[in-house]
Amino acid sequence: MIRVGVNGYGTIGKRVADAVSKQEDMKIIGVVKTKPDYEALTAIRKGYDLYIPKDREKDFREKKIDFKGFIEELFEKSDIIVDATPAGVGAKYKDLYERNGLKAVFQGGEKESVAEVSFNALANYEEAFGKRFIRVVSCNTTGLIRVIWSINRIAPIKRVRAVIIRRGADPKEIDKGPINSLTLDPPKIPSHHAHDVKTVLKDLDIVTMAIATPTTLMHIHTIFIETYDKISRDRLIDVLSDTPRIILVDSNRTGIKSTSQIIELARDLGRERYDIYENVIFRDTIHVDGEEIMLSQAIHQEAIVIPENIDAIRASLSLKKRDESINETDKKLNILRGEVL
Amino acid sequence: MIRVGVNGYGTIGKRVADAVSKQEDMKIIGVVKTKPDYEALTAIRKGYDLYIPKDREKDFREKKIDFKGFIEELFEKSDIIVDATPAGVGAKYKDLYERNGLKAVFQGGEKESVAEVSFNALANYEEAFGKRFIRVVSCNTTGLIRVIWSINRIAPIKRVRAVIIRRGADPKEIDKGPINSLTLDPPKIPSHHAHDVKTVLKDLDIVTMAIATPTTLMHIHTIFIETYDKISRDRLIDVLSDTPRIILVDSNRTGIKSTSQIIELARDLGRERYDIYENVIFRDTIHVDGEEIMLSQAIHQEAIVIPENIDAIRASLSLKKRDESINETDKKLNILRGEVL
Repeated sequence: MIRVGVNGYGTIGKRVADAVSKQEDMKIIGVVKTKPDYEALTAIRKGYDLYIPKDREKDFREKKIDFKGFIEELFEKSDIIVDATPAGVGAKYKDLYERNGLKAVFQGGEKESVAEVSFNALANYEEAFGKRFIRVVSCNTTGLIRVIWSINRIAPIKRVRAVIIRRGADPKEIDKGPINSLTLDPPKIPSHHAHDVKTVLKDLDIVTMAIATPTTLMHIHTIFIETYDKISRDRLIDVLSDTPRIILVDSNRTGIKSTSQIIELARDLGRERYDIYENVIFRDTIHVDGEEIMLSQAIHQEAIVIPENIDAIRASLSLKKRDESINETDKKLNILRGEVL
Repeated sequence: MIRVGVNGYGTIGKRVADAVSKQEDMKIIGVVKTKPDYEALTAIRKGYDLYIPKDREKDFREKKIDFKGFIEELFEKSDIIVDATPAGVGAKYKDLYERNGLKAVFQGGEKESVAEVSFNALANYEEAFGKRFIRVVSCNTTGLIRVIWSINRIAPIKRVRAVIIRRGADPKEIDKGPINSLTLDPPKIPSHHAHDVKTVLKDLDIVTMAIATPTTLMHIHTIFIETYDKISRDRLIDVLSDTPRIILVDSNRTGIKSTSQIIELARDLGRERYDIYENVIFRDTIHVDGEEIMLSQAIHQEAIVIPENIDAIRASLSLKKRDESINETDKKLNILRGEVL
């Protein structure tokens, strides 16, 4: 039983903790929280042992929030740390992980250089096998890689052009905008996502643009792909339907044409925290014209990298082969594929 | 076992169906959906028998959405209908309910005159006992009545002035605004909520104003109450903490100061659809100055009337006394009271 510590109990960290708890080959030893707030209290309520940095002891005692110990103690008890600290903070912890003889899974907010390998379970699980430091690429990058990898299996890809219409902030981020603007993020071409995709799919010709919008639910990607060979729409739908962690919604039949309806569906289906681990492709937007493919998909930024984190743990510790790990993760998290509804 | 039909499987209807299914003294016979869309498909997926109006048969067949039968068949099999049709539509069904010898629970979107009694479980359960037609007042009215009723128990109320900062639309309502405006709703004083409160608390001096805002999560109420007698803040907090369906959050300790953080908490606590059946009072806003009380609370518009619908069914059919029904409903729906976290 692999002993996992989670450093950072925010949007990603709390989901990783819950997802690890659902697996049979790993368990949560504890979670690190630096701020004494409602998320710390819910961690305790869920039965996770809470570890804090020593310099926050006073804050936690003042708010009467119990903790189990200090970060260093968690590090001693763990085999691997999932680092879900804010972007850039993970790199500062790396030394400490090394000194404690720990393996670590970092998130996409860290620079590529933080780890030996940038990771997507479908695309390069094998490359990460046995590696000490693995970086799970970000939500948008994960969403792009899954669909590109899937299509590339049947029609080698010449070129990808993608527009990322980003959610402005996560639901709980009450101090972040925009609240009434469309913001070029960044105001140059390409956005960093293209580079980030290439940390996994190394020689791909890809250009991305990203625009932040006043919504918190999901991102939408509109993707244009040029392939070397012609492929039929039916064949394309078949391969997408048969790819793990991709689902399709039929707008004509279901009336779903927005991120808020997808979230409503997730709520109706009883998904915890309404989490959607899958790429959600709008079936009716799939268009094939000669060597050109177009489609739009929605990506739930809070949840999509969670299965990849579980697989990254297994890859790092050489626990399971790629397909075994993906199948196990998807079974335990009830991840769907193909047409839903 | 009381046989309940739900007419209208939207925001309220689907939640009532799930809540009824959790009770031991009633069960769902079927639900009515008029539109063949993803909500119809999730109803089927959840195992509910779907009934449709005869004139929609073609639409459902075209979309290949199975249904069990037509509305009239559901009415024949039911003891009571929870009418969760859009505002004003319930009144049109009333004749049909009468002709089928049915009892019915209407929602707050209907006029007061649709029913023999407007209903809130805490305030006037007994008045609804055995009544054939009961109207559960709307979300804002329910939220106001609970807190007013609670305070009135220990300090008779002279006057209530309340400002309702409304969510603009429900999460799934993608065609409704405002998206960038604060809209007086209505641009006159009082808003209809004051009148609606008085359908239950008949002689109350209450004035309300409502402003719609670009958010979908919850309403916030800021309430000013004048009492005849002085009451201490501690005593007030005690009585609110001891009132069913009211919870308090400590902003200073938890950092919670927004509707989005309350929803995040509901998600973290594993609430289905992140539903919050309780009034959420911001503890730190509770202020007492002589005979004046002030406080702010958040109200989850999608969920708050659900327990009242269950109690209304029990009241109509004389199944249980007030406290028995409230306790049973709250137990089955895991409804909290008092300080959370």
